[in-house]
Amino acid sequence: MKIIGIDPGIAIVGYSVLTRKGNKLHPIDYGSIETPAGMPTPRRLKEVYDASKHLFLLHQPDVVAIEKLFFNRNVTNAFTVSAARGVIMLAAEEANIKITEYTPLQVKMAVTGFGKAEKSQVQKMVQRLLHLPQIPKPDDVADALAIAICEVHAGAR
Amino acid sequence: MKIIGIDPGIAIVGYSVLTRKGNKLHPIDYGSIETPAGMPTPRRLKEVYDASKHLFLLHQPDVVAIEKLFFNRNVTNAFTVSAARGVIMLAAEEANIKITEYTPLQVKMAVTGFGKAEKSQVQKMVQRLLHLPQIPKPDDVADALAIAICEVHAGAR
Repeated sequence: MKIIGIDPGIAIVGYSVLTRKGNKLHPIDYGSIETPAGMPTPRRLKEVYDASKHLFLLHQPDVVAIEKLFFNRNVTNAFTVSAARGVIMLAAEEANIKITEYTPLQVKMAVTGFGKAEKSQVQKMVQRLLHLPQIPKPDDVADALAIAICEVHAGAR
Repeated sequence: MKIIGIDPGIAIVGYSVLTRKGNKLHPIDYGSIETPAGMPTPRRLKEVYDASKHLFLLHQPDVVAIEKLFFNRNVTNAFTVSAARGVIMLAAEEANIKITEYTPLQVKMAVTGFGKAEKSQVQKMVQRLLHLPQIPKPDDVADALAIAICEVHAGAR
């Protein structure tokens, strides 16, 4: 089974590709899609869409797990991130891939067993569970790995 | 000059197509894109994207004017509408069409000259300016016509 985890954004989208065989998780790819700050929003959305589509067609995952937004004090930014989520979901839908959504709380619970875990605790658990030499950077990439792990746990139930 | 006005949404997208010749405005098409309530969000986004793309390719406008979201107490809904806005902007960007954005306040000011105008006042002005036999329904369609009129006024400055 192959899972892609997505931490959506307009400036940076974290992604991860995991396979699960029995109880074992293997990270086969992870990284980020980035768009320059000065680029107009529609153009950035197209870059995010094109790169997501490429990622989904390249890896052909069974499921794309994408983080849900929670209410944010920066509403303008939350609207733009929602637009980016929209084009990522569109890319997955067009590739006929199942889409699941998890809140930050669900991700923390799945990875650490504790809904109020600090970001650093989540990152350490991600590193340990996937036997990574170090915590992936930037945070968006570590988040995308956590989201994929959350999907594995939810799917295993 | 041809303008498409868009009132974005996930359940219903209002659209309008206007041409301007000198000082005269002609509504050449208006209506709505609708998606069923029970349909999963990614599928609804694809329907909105496909229909928007079709609309833009059919009419080849010089500009697509799209309403900006304002902060809404229903945050979950605002996030979903933002996702729909995202796929509509993507469709316009892919068709190489200029995209402009206006707040509800800018639209009211442009159509009625008064930022606190009631919805019904905006609708009556839309009807009068475009010589329509009646106020278009649903409200989303009248809103899309108002957004296109706002673009004409902004573009004429």
